[in-house]
Formats: sequence, structure tokens, C-alpha cells
Amino acid sequence: MPTFSYDDLMQLPSRYRGRLLNKISGLKPANLIGTKSKNGQPNLAIFNSVVHIGANPPYLGFILRPTTVERHTYENIKETGWYTINQISAQIHKQAHQTSAKYERGVSEFASVGLTEWYHQDFNAPFVAESHIKIGLQFEEEHYVKCNDTRLVIGKVRHLFLPDNCLDEDGDVRLEDLDSVTIGGLDSYYSIAKLGRYPYAKP
Amino acid sequence: MPTFSYDDLMQLPSRYRGRLLNKISGLKPANLIGTKSKNGQPNLAIFNSVVHIGANPPYLGFILRPTTVERHTYENIKETGWYTINQISAQIHKQAHQTSAKYERGVSEFASVGLTEWYHQDFNAPFVAESHIKIGLQFEEEHYVKCNDTRLVIGKVRHLFLPDNCLDEDGDVRLEDLDSVTIGGLDSYYSIAKLGRYPYAKP
Repeated sequence: MPTFSYDDLMQLPSRYRGRLLNKISGLKPANLIGTKSKNGQPNLAIFNSVVHIGANPPYLGFILRPTTVERHTYENIKETGWYTINQISAQIHKQAHQTSAKYERGVSEFASVGLTEWYHQDFNAPFVAESHIKIGLQFEEEHYVKCNDTRLVIGKVRHLFLPDNCLDEDGDVRLEDLDSVTIGGLDSYYSIAKLGRYPYAKP
Repeated sequence: MPTFSYDDLMQLPSRYRGRLLNKISGLKPANLIGTKSKNGQPNLAIFNSVVHIGANPPYLGFILRPTTVERHTYENIKETGWYTINQISAQIHKQAHQTSAKYERGVSEFASVGLTEWYHQDFNAPFVAESHIKIGLQFEEEHYVKCNDTRLVIGKVRHLFLPDNCLDEDGDVRLEDLDSVTIGGLDSYYSIAKLGRYPYAKP
């Protein structure tokens, strides 16, 4: 059985450790975050760290890596207050992965990878037209993680767009009908097959 | 196209809104968090909010719901400093879901749902013997989310146990060979099939 102590992990080559540690937390949500700079430059970036914060009121969070390198997404959110979270389906997962390339400021990832900007009236951040689930958010609060210089960024859901024929009468969204994908680590993508949906558990 | 503004969302029935909002962030990691109280009582609870914080040093986080009701996991982590994160596979996903039932203090979820406590020397929190990936963590820092009374809890990885034959030479873990499952919302479970693994993207 491969076994690693903290000291073992710290002695691994950096990329090996990165791949290993990114995989062990399990499967991750696959989303694209869309923003626009004050100057009107659109930006699109893949994130595997979006997390449900609450439903009442509706909040979502995501983890932002250290801002020591340029982080257009973060800068745009802080400048404008607005951003979008767009679900990645199997059809667009290769384009979505390509957004992780380090494009120069002034280059739009939308055009570079072949995804389409889509706008809603009164909301000045770009949605991804090809995404089945589109969420418009307003920045709410952030937390600086001291131990490694990352941030938890939280936004309030201002707009939600779903495709036809995926929403059940009880509010459930059938992700299995949307070709939703899930991410392993930084580079592996998986399709899903439903095992089951279970009632609220009681002792 | 079903469309919801913030006001629309706030006017939905509470359970409908909860189901809807829990689904829209995409697929979630499936983990069991194991703890032990100062008095030696083991606890096991399912979490769909574990998130990668960093690899150097290795940190994982998770979101904890409001502590207005009893939260044995949180109390035990704060009391002892130790906890485990254990991956849920298809074989144990029904038992894992059952840990979400509100068991009385003094009742072990391990025994109640039929999972096995497993201990590592010098680490006083229970792992799940049936889990393919077992992680032992030490509490590092927490952040109180003001907007809805939740918390981001972060721990440092102290021990990592993997099964044989899933770890590639470059540090990648083949989740597809571990029957790993992913969670939609609060109640839906999915198996995975690999679409692809792609190189580091370049413009």
C-alpha cells in the first residue's frame, strides 16, 4: 500500500506532489468563470474549486490560487463586482481545458478557444453560450488563507439560466441529462452515469 | 429556458431552492470525514465540499454548515486537532449517504451504517477501512463566512494511504480504477468514465 507521511510528501518532486495532491480530494466540479475588465476586455478561466456555500440566500464560492502571478479573473471581480460561473459539458471540455493556458492580457480566451460570449441585460460579465448551466454572481466577501496565500471568494447568485427539460418538479436538476463532466486533478476529465438518488437519511 | 433572478430564487419554497442551488455548482467530491471526541467517541459524516487548497505544503479544506445545530465533526476537530478524509467508492456510497442521518451523540455512525474503523499508529482519528484513499489531517486554520454563518476549515495532510496499482509514475492517481463516485446536490450519486487526460495547456 503506497503510504506517505507529511515529510514524505514534502520530499517529492514538485510536479509529482502537485499531481498527487490534486487527485486525492476526489472528483471536482468543472466550471468556467467569465469576467470583464473595467476596460471591457472579456476573460474566461477554468476552475475546479467551485463550492456550494448556501441556498438561503444563494451563495457560491471558489478557491483562488496565490495572486503572485497575474490573476485576471480576480482583478476583474474586484474591479467590477460581477462574474459568471458556467458549467462545462463533455462537448466543450477540451476548449474549457485550453482556457488554462497563459494568454496575454488583451487576448480573449473566448475567441482563442472557440467559445461564445453571451450577455444578459443589466449584467456586465460574459456568460458562455455553450454552457448548459449559466450563473451570474455579485462579489460578496473573500477570505485570505494565511497558510498558503490562496483566497476563498464568495458571490451571491443574481441570475440563473438552465436549459429546458432538466429541472424536475421538486427543484432537482438532472445533471446526467446535461452531459456534465467532472474533473480529476488538474488534467483529467470524466463523464458521469447515475448510480442513484436517495431519500433524506434517518437513523 | 428556465430563468431565475435573485428575487425569483428567494421566493421559491425552501426545499425546492435547496435542491436547485445545491445542484448548479456541478459535480462534487464524495468523502467521509472521521473524527473522535476527547472522550473517545468516533464520528463519521459525509461531506461533498472538500476542496484542494494547496500541494506545497499539502492542505485540504471543506465547508462546514452553520453550527447552530450540533456539529460533532467540527467539535471533535476543534477539541483534538485531528481528522480523516476518506474517499467514497461505488461499493460504499449507500452506507456513506446513511451517515447523513442525525444520530444521537454516543451512537457511532461506523457501526450504524456498517463501515469499519481503521487506525494508524500515533494518529487518534478513525479512518474508514473500506475507503480506497485515506487522508489523515491536522487542523490548520478556519474562516468564518459572515454572509451565511458557514466556515471554511483547512487542515494539513499528515498521512496519505493509497491502494496498490492506482498511482502512476508521474504522481497521477487513476480515480477511474478506484470506483470513485461523485455527488450531485445532496442526494444523487454518479459513477465516472474517463474522457481524457490532457497536457498542460499553452496558448
